[in-house]
Amino acid sequence: MKADWVENFIRKVWNEGDADAAADFLASAYTIHHDPGDPWEGKTLDLEGFKDRVRQSRGPVPDQRFELLDVCEGEDRVFITWLWQGTHRGDIAGFPATGRTLSMSGATVYLFDGDRISGHWQIADRLGIFRQLQGA
Amino acid sequence: MKADWVENFIRKVWNEGDADAAADFLASAYTIHHDPGDPWEGKTLDLEGFKDRVRQSRGPVPDQRFELLDVCEGEDRVFITWLWQGTHRGDIAGFPATGRTLSMSGATVYLFDGDRISGHWQIADRLGIFRQLQGA
Repeated sequence: MKADWVENFIRKVWNEGDADAAADFLASAYTIHHDPGDPWEGKTLDLEGFKDRVRQSRGPVPDQRFELLDVCEGEDRVFITWLWQGTHRGDIAGFPATGRTLSMSGATVYLFDGDRISGHWQIADRLGIFRQLQGA
Repeated sequence: MKADWVENFIRKVWNEGDADAAADFLASAYTIHHDPGDPWEGKTLDLEGFKDRVRQSRGPVPDQRFELLDVCEGEDRVFITWLWQGTHRGDIAGFPATGRTLSMSGATVYLFDGDRISGHWQIADRLGIFRQLQGA
């Protein structure tokens, strides 16, 4: 089931931080179709590029965890909603580490090419994170 | 089909601005479960409260339109992703009208109680709108 595939991908790659495990889940090209505020928005990455994205994204929040709230499986895509939390241990967009817990919610559509994930369309509550980084 | 129900609800109530038509689609109580940045987040509204929300939300952007991008129907819920656009004709959170076009993307899970919509869980790109309002 594609929903299980997405859940395992998020657990291994994003929660456990095993960037190399991306090879087990992804198609040869991964496109960030829509993800406003994400530095990779609009780009198509190969496997090495995707691993770099995982490492760079997780770097400042190394204990980050996505908790899946809701999942809906379509024919060639999986919709999820999620909560995300982690400790601010490094520079994020110019905001230096504070040691505080950051929290964010979001929704993602993972797109499949056959049985492999080939990209996503995503919205995250970046205004909420921006306010937390500003200490508001 | 619940997906059609949601599409018709959005077209009539939100795009055409017929707040009274909400009576045709909603359960007797409507809960905004999660919608960070929305003034009604966490509230449960009756029909009149929901109509007020539609009128207040649409007031400053009266020609607003949601364009549905993707839909996934679950047993008691419908996931959608959307683009939104409209002309800034009135005060939004202290930002006076500019006459400019505002654009936003988002994702919503509509929850059903039987065959009626009883609430939503939503994320919108409010950081993007905030930057447009600031004229950045």
